[in-house]
Amino acid sequence: MTAAEHPALDALRRALGDALSTEASDLDAARGDYSGQRSESAPLAVVHARSAADVQAALRIASAHRLPVVPRGAGTGLTGGAIARGGELVISTARMTRIIAIEPADQLAVVEPGVIVADLGAAVAPHGLFYAPDPASRAICSIGGTIATNAGGLLCAKYGVTREAVLGLTVVLADGTLLELGHRTVKGVTGLDLTALMIGSEGTLGIVVEATLRLLPLPEGEPATIAATFPSVVSAAEASSAITAAGLRPAAMELIDPLALRLIRAHLGLPAVAEGSASLIVQTDGSAAAREAEAVLGIVRAHGGEASIARDRHEGEGMLAVRGAFHPAMAAQGEVLIEDVCVPRSQLPAIVAAIERIGERHALLIPSVAHAGDGNLHPNIIYTGDTVPERVWTAAGEIFAAALELGGTLTGEHGIGTLKRRWLGDELGEPQLELQRRIKAVFDPLGIMNPGKVL
Amino acid sequence: MTAAEHPALDALRRALGDALSTEASDLDAARGDYSGQRSESAPLAVVHARSAADVQAALRIASAHRLPVVPRGAGTGLTGGAIARGGELVISTARMTRIIAIEPADQLAVVEPGVIVADLGAAVAPHGLFYAPDPASRAICSIGGTIATNAGGLLCAKYGVTREAVLGLTVVLADGTLLELGHRTVKGVTGLDLTALMIGSEGTLGIVVEATLRLLPLPEGEPATIAATFPSVVSAAEASSAITAAGLRPAAMELIDPLALRLIRAHLGLPAVAEGSASLIVQTDGSAAAREAEAVLGIVRAHGGEASIARDRHEGEGMLAVRGAFHPAMAAQGEVLIEDVCVPRSQLPAIVAAIERIGERHALLIPSVAHAGDGNLHPNIIYTGDTVPERVWTAAGEIFAAALELGGTLTGEHGIGTLKRRWLGDELGEPQLELQRRIKAVFDPLGIMNPGKVL
Ligand SMILES: Cc1cc2nc3c(=O)[nH]c(=O)nc-3n(C[C@H](O)[C@H](O)[C@H](O)COP(=O)(O)OP(=O)(O)OC[C@H]3O[C@@H](n4cnc5c(N)ncnc54)[C@H](O)[C@@H]3O)c2cc1C
Ligand SMILES: Cc1cc2nc3c(=O)[nH]c(=O)nc-3n(C[C@H](O)[C@H](O)[C@H](O)COP(=O)(O)OP(=O)(O)OC[C@H]3O[C@@H](n4cnc5c(N)ncnc54)[C@H](O)[C@@H]3O)c2cc1C
Repeated sequence: MTAAEHPALDALRRALGDALSTEASDLDAARGDYSGQRSESAPLAVVHARSAADVQAALRIASAHRLPVVPRGAGTGLTGGAIARGGELVISTARMTRIIAIEPADQLAVVEPGVIVADLGAAVAPHGLFYAPDPASRAICSIGGTIATNAGGLLCAKYGVTREAVLGLTVVLADGTLLELGHRTVKGVTGLDLTALMIGSEGTLGIVVEATLRLLPLPEGEPATIAATFPSVVSAAEASSAITAAGLRPAAMELIDPLALRLIRAHLGLPAVAEGSASLIVQTDGSAAAREAEAVLGIVRAHGGEASIARDRHEGEGMLAVRGAFHPAMAAQGEVLIEDVCVPRSQLPAIVAAIERIGERHALLIPSVAHAGDGNLHPNIIYTGDTVPERVWTAAGEIFAAALELGGTLTGEHGIGTLKRRWLGDELGEPQLELQRRIKAVFDPLGIMNPGKVL
Repeated sequence: MTAAEHPALDALRRALGDALSTEASDLDAARGDYSGQRSESAPLAVVHARSAADVQAALRIASAHRLPVVPRGAGTGLTGGAIARGGELVISTARMTRIIAIEPADQLAVVEPGVIVADLGAAVAPHGLFYAPDPASRAICSIGGTIATNAGGLLCAKYGVTREAVLGLTVVLADGTLLELGHRTVKGVTGLDLTALMIGSEGTLGIVVEATLRLLPLPEGEPATIAATFPSVVSAAEASSAITAAGLRPAAMELIDPLALRLIRAHLGLPAVAEGSASLIVQTDGSAAAREAEAVLGIVRAHGGEASIARDRHEGEGMLAVRGAFHPAMAAQGEVLIEDVCVPRSQLPAIVAAIERIGERHALLIPSVAHAGDGNLHPNIIYTGDTVPERVWTAAGEIFAAALELGGTLTGEHGIGTLKRRWLGDELGEPQLELQRRIKAVFDPLGIMNPGKVL
């Protein structure tokens, strides 16, 4: 093994003992994430950090040896942000899974970064609280990864994304310095907001080793769920815009385009719907849930939707299960490039139409679902084979260009990673990119933190 | 006039024409803000910017001459952040008052920084929308200043502070570069979040020349207002904690301590209440307002409060007017040092008790009001004379130490400015302070942006 000969390994082993792994299976796992990408060669080693001290020790040694470091959580990312290559050191926080404190009176929790998002939800529910950021991957992704990507989810239009939920962070910088950022309070303006800067930084500034998270009181009563079918995706998108414009604030509002709907229904063995039909699933919550659901129903019908309100929680869950089956249904089609554009809500019909044209032009299937309340759309480009064909990248590029043209952004919630790097400059422009690079250099002067990602 | 001889003035006058002022009254106004502090000497000149181009021109010349620059909005700040000294150039955005766009479908507004917060509220209300950050100074402060201080207000526990309301910013850096940060979308993760970094940066990183702001649908129906009197401030604080802990989310929850209550009531000519009484004013809103108000009433009474619910909007406004009279009532007592600590909500009783002890120890009147839903307390230290007496600073320092001890922060919403600079290191620690200074240097390598403030 040539890897064993790297001079840093010896120091790492001495400092970290069992927490250091050079096992082939660990190294291999770190070559990929859920983006479907894989690096060409395995990293040097994986640190399964047990504590902040482990992370500090590993980073000090990495700095001394100028070893590139890839922070890693649960590896469910969709943009290659946690993928490690030959010569790199993976520092995983996946085993730091302690919930350190739950403080109902202050509606906050203090957790280690490896805690799985759904586990935190389960732990705080008995206190009548919930943690708002709820990515579709909540059962498998870690808090650290969601902070590093500013993850969103179904509930975010109403309850905010990860940025709104993080009060404070403990982070380790490239040189091993441990910093406490932010507050345990819900407000604060002491100096620059480095907590916010860390959120969404995709492991390029430092490693999160602890987070103080804001919890919210669970909404009262039962949610109400509406499933609607529209004759076209444009009418579904227009209905969703009208729901927002009416001042209603659904907890979730998910749009499924015709192609996605057809594939999901086939995957679930449900009867087909009319060609071109699209679906909108809306959930209202809180004490006004039932009344708001009626208002939603009125708007849906006025836009030509056929809709019904679930009679009970069970039926509501069934309606949402159709949305939940999106990822497996797509995966059953072949390989998938999962995209993540976001546009101002009123432009949802326009981006949907643009994607349809792009799919036709390149003879590609591009089914999409959208968090319609956010204007956040996930076009999934389906292809076959081991590597992403060039025309898939071309189509992705055209989708990004369309989103930017409509006043939107490349990524609503998944981040840039390696996959969207080549388009980052299109959105930010060179002067801002340069400023960002210089800020990164302040945190990481040697440039060892997640090199080749984002910036 | 020696000022006229500064070599930069000629260039500024040529570039800016009428927008440049060296009038004594303008220079004099820029020596102070609402903190009650004044600089020892007048600045060189004031640029009344009319456009982003004016700000760029002024900053280019300032950079060329290494002239220190003080950004200024409406001058209502409470920490001296906008105060300018001899040799400094003030760049005011107060005259950039255009509301560029209101987009109801996307629930956003695009504004220039000089727009007064209340004016934005009035402009968007006909669309059924509101702008959540509502500092008590909303009728007189500018959007630019609220962004630079991450201002909060009465509604922020429920609807978020300025940081949650800003989607994107156009800023001018020290060298005149114009940058567009953030998005028009409600989500986005493209690179580092420089929008968030600008918010609360108190004019030390650049000048905000345009902002894209998130609006929210106006809550349905009439709000319900409860005014309660408690035998002690501790029981009032405990009731407020219990309201939050019960999962209720009042739109506003303001606590008035016994000393403040006595002074306000005397100022308004209202009959005195029993010695030691404190007041809690709670407003619920949305479709569940009435039911939530009943729940609040139950908790208030269980904590020994005597309370009533307003019968109509008018009566409710009367209840809140007592809180609104706080600043004038304090100002009538003498000079006031307005503080702004924030603690985890459960620690509100403890910080209130600590401040009472500090007041007694230094024989100072320190009436306080709190945004109780946030744990954000404004102790007002009353003194007489032109300069803040040393024992007032000592008391302030003790209040900060108590807040930090309780897991809180120096400033919930007013910022650091010049007034709290000497304590900033106590909260952040030297390594973080140093990191912040280096980030500032990336934006402002010559160190001309608001020198002597915050960092
Ligand atoms: C089926 C499926 C559905 C999904 N749905 C959503 C969704 O609805 N919304 C959404 O936002 N995302 C979604 N995702 C994407 C993904 O789950 C999120 O990006 C998640 O936040 C990644 O968490 P992770 O722990 O797996 O991070 P990883 O994939 O391990 O890492 C992601 C990034 O975070 C960095 N990182 C990880 N841990 C740390 C740490 N402790 N400190 C610093 N940096 C760190 C890594 O370097 C990398 O750049 C989905 C993914 C899948 C597979
Ligand atoms: C009676 C009263 C009540 C108050 N109540 C509250 C309250 O409830 N909540 C609260 O948060 N604050 C409150 N304040 C404080 C104050 O109103 C806020 O801090 C407000 O945000 C300042 O806005 P301004 O336009 O007056 O800014 P200024 O005082 O002019 O400046 C404040 C800071 O912002 C910077 N700045 C201003 N404009 C720009 C710009 N365009 N670009 C970059 N930097 C800029 C300045 O350099 C300075 O550091 C209150 C003040 C008063 C007098």
